Amino acid sequence: MAAKKEQITGNMLIAQSGGPTAVINQSLVGAVLEAKNQDCIQRIYGARHGIQGILNEDFIDMKREPKKVLEQVAQTPSSALGSVRRKPTAEDCAKIFDVLQRYDVRYFFYIGGNDSAETAHIINEEARKAKYDLHCFHICKTIDNDLRQNDHTPGFGSAAKFVAQAFMGDNLDNRALPGVKINVVMGRHAGFLTAASALARQDEDDGPHLIYLPERPFRMTQFVRDVKATVKQYGRCVVAVSEGIADGNGTPIVQKNLKTGEKDSHGNVQLSGTGALGDILAAEIKDKTPIKRVRADTFGYLQRSFAGCVSEVDAAEARRVGEEAVRCAATGGKSGSIAIKRKNSKRYAVEYRRVPLKSVAKETRHMPDSFINKDGNDVTKRFIDYARPLLGEIPLMGRLKQVVVKKKD
Amino acid sequence: MAAKKEQITGNMLIAQSGGPTAVINQSLVGAVLEAKNQDCIQRIYGARHGIQGILNEDFIDMKREPKKVLEQVAQTPSSALGSVRRKPTAEDCAKIFDVLQRYDVRYFFYIGGNDSAETAHIINEEARKAKYDLHCFHICKTIDNDLRQNDHTPGFGSAAKFVAQAFMGDNLDNRALPGVKINVVMGRHAGFLTAASALARQDEDDGPHLIYLPERPFRMTQFVRDVKATVKQYGRCVVAVSEGIADGNGTPIVQKNLKTGEKDSHGNVQLSGTGALGDILAAEIKDKTPIKRVRADTFGYLQRSFAGCVSEVDAAEARRVGEEAVRCAATGGKSGSIAIKRKNSKRYAVEYRRVPLKSVAKETRHMPDSFINKDGNDVTKRFIDYARPLLGEIPLMGRLKQVVVKKKD
Repeated sequence: MAAKKEQITGNMLIAQSGGPTAVINQSLVGAVLEAKNQDCIQRIYGARHGIQGILNEDFIDMKREPKKVLEQVAQTPSSALGSVRRKPTAEDCAKIFDVLQRYDVRYFFYIGGNDSAETAHIINEEARKAKYDLHCFHICKTIDNDLRQNDHTPGFGSAAKFVAQAFMGDNLDNRALPGVKINVVMGRHAGFLTAASALARQDEDDGPHLIYLPERPFRMTQFVRDVKATVKQYGRCVVAVSEGIADGNGTPIVQKNLKTGEKDSHGNVQLSGTGALGDILAAEIKDKTPIKRVRADTFGYLQRSFAGCVSEVDAAEARRVGEEAVRCAATGGKSGSIAIKRKNSKRYAVEYRRVPLKSVAKETRHMPDSFINKDGNDVTKRFIDYARPLLGEIPLMGRLKQVVVKKKD
Repeated sequence: MAAKKEQITGNMLIAQSGGPTAVINQSLVGAVLEAKNQDCIQRIYGARHGIQGILNEDFIDMKREPKKVLEQVAQTPSSALGSVRRKPTAEDCAKIFDVLQRYDVRYFFYIGGNDSAETAHIINEEARKAKYDLHCFHICKTIDNDLRQNDHTPGFGSAAKFVAQAFMGDNLDNRALPGVKINVVMGRHAGFLTAASALARQDEDDGPHLIYLPERPFRMTQFVRDVKATVKQYGRCVVAVSEGIADGNGTPIVQKNLKTGEKDSHGNVQLSGTGALGDILAAEIKDKTPIKRVRADTFGYLQRSFAGCVSEVDAAEARRVGEEAVRCAATGGKSGSIAIKRKNSKRYAVEYRRVPLKSVAKETRHMPDSFINKDGNDVTKRFIDYARPLLGEIPLMGRLKQVVVKKKD
């Protein structure tokens, strides 16, 4: 191949960005181990804490990591290189590009969400303008499952599995001690993870009985009505709600109901790492209905980093995306993001395709209409069919047959 | 044996009470399967929702449950028979005793905490007074690990495993994106479960860096000082705190800091199923320190019912306690609770001993002083040695060696 002949030899730099996931290290390890096989890649630098590490030239030598350590890290949640929540400025990007040149980095891999794809895109443009031969790739991850071009993203399956298993247990808890239970799930703009709670259902009367997503306007009156109707039907109600639910104008429900002074220093309302939304919704039910036992839990950071709850499908795909990015770059691919596409086959199968960086950058993807029911308080069977294979094996809940004994007179 | 000759033949009744656990069904299934082997036990009734089911004569026929179903139920979290949070009155107890007689129940087993032991004790006394031949047993369970007479209780090991795995992941999340992270763990009066967070530590700098228990008065000023010192040392801080932490006068911290109107209809402060305490503590750190990234999560009900996180040691012991109770009753034991005693051996081993119902009833057990450090903000090695075997296998977190690359001039 022509491309292969021109392949430049140089160093590689890899970094992780954004919220950690349970399998983000699979992608890291996949990329590093694949890179070790490639003659065109010499040193392998890992930047600590994403672009912050690049700007500070805070690199570690990934070739000094023994395979055994790497394999253990692959099975460990959260970003092993450290992460960062910083979106680089144009000035940062210029400085990053300068660092890449000084370290003779010819292969750059950035593991992250749509912001990271945007960063990779900008750096790639800099290199192009400067006629610097750089292979610049984005490796996707996000528990939110909201990257364009992807059928689903690495990290989602494991987080979805956590959410499903949490609801499985919580549904049984609620069956044992009936009442209303509200669980707040991560997801500011995309409801995929909250929707995954539906995978907890085995029997017709299993919770979650109601699912509220950011894709639909949330109305407090409808919520109270829905809960009342469910309690009437089942004597109990388990609710899944996205942290990002908002009213018809797009104002987050948590923001609407907070008293002044509860915003952060930037005037932003913090959605994760606070129990506010759950408490607001529980208070509303207590206030507007005679239901006594009302509880709310916010799953919080456990969803993305709980140790020991990984979808084997997700883990394998995350590994593969990392490997593919390196293979692609080492065989002449100039830039791109490795997207997961689902094959149109009866049995679940995927393929990995290089897509332009720009096509993944910036905007996010939302739940398609076909995944949400008409009333906007549940998911459809189509969503269940879509999501089920991504979780891998999930436990089966047992249930007593409950043959009732005739009462003695 | 003399006792065996006199063994009365009759029916058995079993029920579950209080907060569900991940292994409470192991005890149920252990008792039921053992009872099927006992000639003196005829019908096996399962009461739905504890004493409420007994009072309403809401029984199911446990002999009609196929073994396969029972074995699946054994591996399922939360009380399969349903539970109840009702402490019976003297009148209730008299009525329960009446029901037992009408259904010719000669073997009664109540799975629960210290309140359930108290209930069993009262019913046993009624039977004695009436000279009604009843074998009355308590089968212990509680994630709080606060039952007297027991080295530890079924349900604790699995809940402790959940807490440890949650902190393992969350510690790595906090390492990737540094800041202060506060996690609120269940436990009103006993700190065992919060203390189990320490089992998450592998390396010296691993969190939780601070652990606050209800056994020691909580002082907000010390808390802020501790967090500041930890951030100075590690650049981050993970905190474990019991929901029940209280000041020197025993007033819960959450109660002290809530505005009026946030109590429930009975004037009680609700500790579980609300994110209030975590938010209060996070607000204090934001207010009193320059630390920017402060988050709080409340683990909530996931701790006791998450599907797929069970300690195999806990599961086996829970099963055994159920079996032992039935064996004990069927071989002449009149009443008691099956307590778990740890053998004084090098390798972890336990034995099961019948103890008087009264000795387990009412009062609870707290963390012994030897398990808590001098400053009251951590546990001791002695606690770690005590708790470690109870969790069974826990995942090993991988960590990069991180050989630093020398910066280029």
